[in-house]
This record gives sequence, C-alpha cells and structure tokens, in this order.
Amino acid sequence: MKNDLFLKALKGETVERPPVWMMRQAGRYLPEFMAIRKKYDFFTRCQTPELAAEITVQPIRRYGMDAAILFSDILVIPQAMNIPFEMEEGLGPYLPNPIRSQKDVDQTVVPDIQETLGYVMDAIKLTKEMLNNEIPLIGFAGSPWTILCYCVQGQGSKTFDKAKEFCFTQPIAAHTLLQKITDTTIAYLKEKVKAGVDVVQIFDSWGGMLSPVDYQEFSWKYIQQIIEALKESAPVISFAKGCWYALEEMSKSNVSALGVDWTISPQIARKFTNNSVTLQGNLDPTRLLSPPKEIKRLVTQMINDFGKDKYIVNLGHGILPNIPLDHVQAFIDAVKEYK
Amino acid sequence: MKNDLFLKALKGETVERPPVWMMRQAGRYLPEFMAIRKKYDFFTRCQTPELAAEITVQPIRRYGMDAAILFSDILVIPQAMNIPFEMEEGLGPYLPNPIRSQKDVDQTVVPDIQETLGYVMDAIKLTKEMLNNEIPLIGFAGSPWTILCYCVQGQGSKTFDKAKEFCFTQPIAAHTLLQKITDTTIAYLKEKVKAGVDVVQIFDSWGGMLSPVDYQEFSWKYIQQIIEALKESAPVISFAKGCWYALEEMSKSNVSALGVDWTISPQIARKFTNNSVTLQGNLDPTRLLSPPKEIKRLVTQMINDFGKDKYIVNLGHGILPNIPLDHVQAFIDAVKEYK
Repeated sequence: MKNDLFLKALKGETVERPPVWMMRQAGRYLPEFMAIRKKYDFFTRCQTPELAAEITVQPIRRYGMDAAILFSDILVIPQAMNIPFEMEEGLGPYLPNPIRSQKDVDQTVVPDIQETLGYVMDAIKLTKEMLNNEIPLIGFAGSPWTILCYCVQGQGSKTFDKAKEFCFTQPIAAHTLLQKITDTTIAYLKEKVKAGVDVVQIFDSWGGMLSPVDYQEFSWKYIQQIIEALKESAPVISFAKGCWYALEEMSKSNVSALGVDWTISPQIARKFTNNSVTLQGNLDPTRLLSPPKEIKRLVTQMINDFGKDKYIVNLGHGILPNIPLDHVQAFIDAVKEYK
Repeated sequence: MKNDLFLKALKGETVERPPVWMMRQAGRYLPEFMAIRKKYDFFTRCQTPELAAEITVQPIRRYGMDAAILFSDILVIPQAMNIPFEMEEGLGPYLPNPIRSQKDVDQTVVPDIQETLGYVMDAIKLTKEMLNNEIPLIGFAGSPWTILCYCVQGQGSKTFDKAKEFCFTQPIAAHTLLQKITDTTIAYLKEKVKAGVDVVQIFDSWGGMLSPVDYQEFSWKYIQQIIEALKESAPVISFAKGCWYALEEMSKSNVSALGVDWTISPQIARKFTNNSVTLQGNLDPTRLLSPPKEIKRLVTQMINDFGKDKYIVNLGHGILPNIPLDHVQAFIDAVKEYK
C-alpha cells in the first residue's frame, strides 16, 4: 500500500500526521456524484459494479483522502434476507412490509452471499483495480440493531418507537431477527474481505436511541460477535453514534478503532477508552458550513486534542449534502498540513 | 401545600418516597385530552384559560401525580416576539418566515408580557384554583437555543442544520437573537411565578445537537442567565436532552434540579453531578410500551439506582401518544408503592 497512514493508525503505530477520510465522502455534496445520480437510480448505482466503483473513487480524485469507502448501502443486507425495501430519492428508504411479528421474522432468510450480493464483490474488485494500491478500501455494514430499526420501523424516524416496541414486547422474535442479521453480516463482511476490502466499518447509527442497559442487550452483544468473527481477517472499526456511555466497554473488545460523534470532547473520549484504542472522528458535520479559516482552526485543535497517533480524522457523522466544495478542501488540507 | 414531596425533593430534603410526574403528562395518550383536541384547535387550547387549566388537571385527576405542569407550548415565546408560527395537527409547528439574517433578527421584539401572554397568566390563576393547593404547579419555557432552532429551521428537524449554520456563519445575529429570547423568557417566567407557578422548568430539547464547546456558547450561557434571574423567585429545573457532557458544569450553577434523559445511567448521572443536585428522570419513554410488570420492575430499579432523596421520578423525555393507560398507571403506582 503506497499510502499506509490509515492502516498504521489502526494498528496504533506512530505516524507523521493522522489519516483522514469522511463518512459519506462519496455523496451528494459532489457535483460528479450528482451527475451520476441524475442518470441512474439508487438501486442501479448500488448494483452496477462500474457505477459503484466510479462513485467510490470520485472523492479520492478530487481531494486525495487516505482511505476510500465502497459506495453501497446498509440496506442491501435486509434486501438479501428477503426483506424488500424501496428508495424514495431525497426521502430515504422505506419498507412496504415492515417486520412486526415472529411470523415475519420466520420468513426472513440467512442468504447465500455470493448469490444475493455478488455485485458488491464485483464492485470491490473493480474499485481495488482503480485504486491501484494507492490507499486502502473500507467495506461497511450496518449494525444488527440499526438494520432492525429500519426493518421494523419501515422508514427513518426520530425515535424508532416501533422498533423499540418490538424489542421490548417481543424480545424473543427481536433476538431471533438480530441473530439472523448478525449471521448474514458476518458472512457478508468475510466475503468482502476476500474480495479485497482492507478494513471494515460497522455503522451503529441508531445505537444512541437505547439506554445503556438496552444497548448491551440489543446492540453491542451482536456487534461484538461481528468483531470476534472478523478480527483475524481485517481491522474492524465500530461507529456507534450517541453511544458515549458504552465507549469504555467497547474499548476492551478486539475492535481496531472506535468512531465517536461530536458530542464527546476528544479528552473525554480518550479518558473513557483509557487511551487504549484508536479513535476516529469527530467534527460536527454542520461545522463544515463555517468559513474555511475556522474549519482549519477547528481541525488543528481537534488533532491536538486527540493527539496525532492512534487517531483517524473524520467527521462525527456523514457529510451533509449542502457543504461547499472548498470547505471540504479546507478540512482535508488542514490535516495534510498538520505539523 | 398538602403534598409537598416535589418541593421537598427540589430542596434536597429527605422524603418517604420520591415525587413523580411525567413530561407531556397532559397530552395525546389521554382520551379526555383527545376529546378536547377534537373540538378545539391548538391555539384555542393554549389561549383559552379554561381549556388550558382543564387539560393541565386531567392527568392529575386520573393518576394523582405529585406535580402538575401548565398546558402550553414553548413557541408562545417566538409568537409574542413577532415571529409567527402555524401548527399542523399531528405534524407539529412550522414558521412561514423563518429567521435567516440580522435584518430578520432586528424585526423581532422583546414584548410586553402581560399584553402578549396575559392569557397564560389567567390560565395559571385558574389552574391554581382548581388544584386547591393539593400539589405544586410547574410553568415552563424552551431554552433560548431550542427556541432559536425552531425560529431559524422553520420546522422540526433531525439535525437542525439551518439553525446551526445560522449560528456558525452569522454568530453576531445569532447571539442578538438568543439574548432577545433570553430577555423575553426571563420576563415571562417571572410573570408566571407572580401569577402562581411554584416551580419553573426550562426545556433544552435540542441542546444535544451541539458539541460541548458550542453548547457552552450557544445554549448554556443563556440558560444560566435565566437561572440567575429566577433563583430568588422559584426553584428552576433545567432539562437538557442529550447534554450529559455538560452535567458537571450545570450542577455547579444555582439550578434546583437537572433533568436527564435515558441514555445516562443513574450512577453515572450522580457521579457527573458529584451527588450535589436533585436529578429528574429518566425512564426511556418507549419503555412504557413494556408489560406493566416489567415497568414496575424498571421503576423500582431506577429509584434504587438514583436513590430516593434528591430525586424526582420522570421519563427521560415526553410520554409518547401511543402508551396504554394501564401502563401509565403501573409507572405511577410503582413510585407510590416504593419502599
């Protein structure tokens, strides 16, 4: 790997400067992505290896991040499990038949990955060729809890109350579903590593909806299974938004890095994780609306506060669609110019 | 006051059992509220003292909570400041002309409270009569930051990105607006106390959208002004959802109690506040969908974990509209039966 900053940071090795990438870096703030989006709908973009690979490398060409992340969606997993969803451009995904009972859970399957998600593996191979060993490629999956949220709620939500109701009133059905999602995700991520991804990240976008006790029961338990199953194959990053309260426990696992959102200060994040694990984050994505000079000041401060080692510069959540291109440039430049 | 459990807990005095009330206890889960809602629209309910008072006492009649909270809305403040909003039943409030510039801010006013919000004071006097000194009455206001969120975003949001953009790119205009909201809120809460409320609560529903540094600058600074201005008049409770990171600093203020949401364990909340302040919370509102027996177990555990003194039993956010009545009964009973 020509640029191994990201892999070094994941191993906790000393680096000249921390690596940088951005969650959702292949996305709607980029005019070249919008051009593709205009021509091809969501499923075509995900399922056509040439398009997924092209979208993946677009931000790298423009900004030269230190890692690429394969363009895809966390909902390819329920789709493969016989839980179909549809995508409303601009509004997000919704499920015509959300899961609400044990019977619904029984109708889901743990699928053959090559058969259902072979197109992802093809996209990985193509992307790896295009990246030409310049930088590592990340493959990702949603956490089982976050996937359950969508499968049961049927759409995005502020509270995911239906998903939580399902867990709290039908815990056996919920755990059966969570285990099936976990088994599918493990098989899926293993195939992705075989196809060429260098690192995997688990997005627990809705973990922070749960109390600390419920988080252990309905989310972390399953993420842990994924980490244990993958640890010999590739470094695993876990990003659990809003789950500051579980950082200490998570830091004791075999995870290679923990993502943190912007509601935790770097100093407190280091304290909660006993400085034992690589951290990734955590600029408030809305802060990229600040003037470029302010962005540079904030990024430099952030690196100083996390420390340059055992650290991966990122946002605290995905980049917003309305961020000006030169503001992204300021974010990336601030890291590359860090001394 | 015949039942002074709530006031005693706010003073940190020893009690036989902790007091209990629920955020949004006068609301959509109650059939008697729904009957009124069918007949009168949102503004009529807020602005007609007889209706507001009746709605306020409805949950007390049914369940006998240890405190009542005046039925109203945090958006009466921007309305009085010449920032009109409209209400879509079931969808929530929206502003036809959101605030986006210094000029917009200049057009807002710090109003005369009796002139613009006299109907709230009338509702308080009527409610106090109806309560007949049985239990205390809480009056509330939104935090200046939370009010700004609605005024700038123009509607509810998952990220309040436009509100944050306004603060990050036009900080002078933002601080001018925040100060005007603060001045209005202080005058409003002082009038409420004069009219008869025994306690005030500040709802910082969207504080947790901000980073710890931005929270100090755009939210806590103004809440602190309100606490300082009110401290001689009535006990102040501050509930800042998602702001676990500011608990230590908040606990050092002159606040009488701090509300906490369900993402912090009682033990950690006590630790962060050095056991120095009364805490209020924090059952996950979705947990009221659990079977009644489970609710009772969770509430007993929660009281054990917070400790019965310096503690007010509540939910971690407002009660959801779809909670069965007997589940609310189980929640209240568990507190009253606590030994």
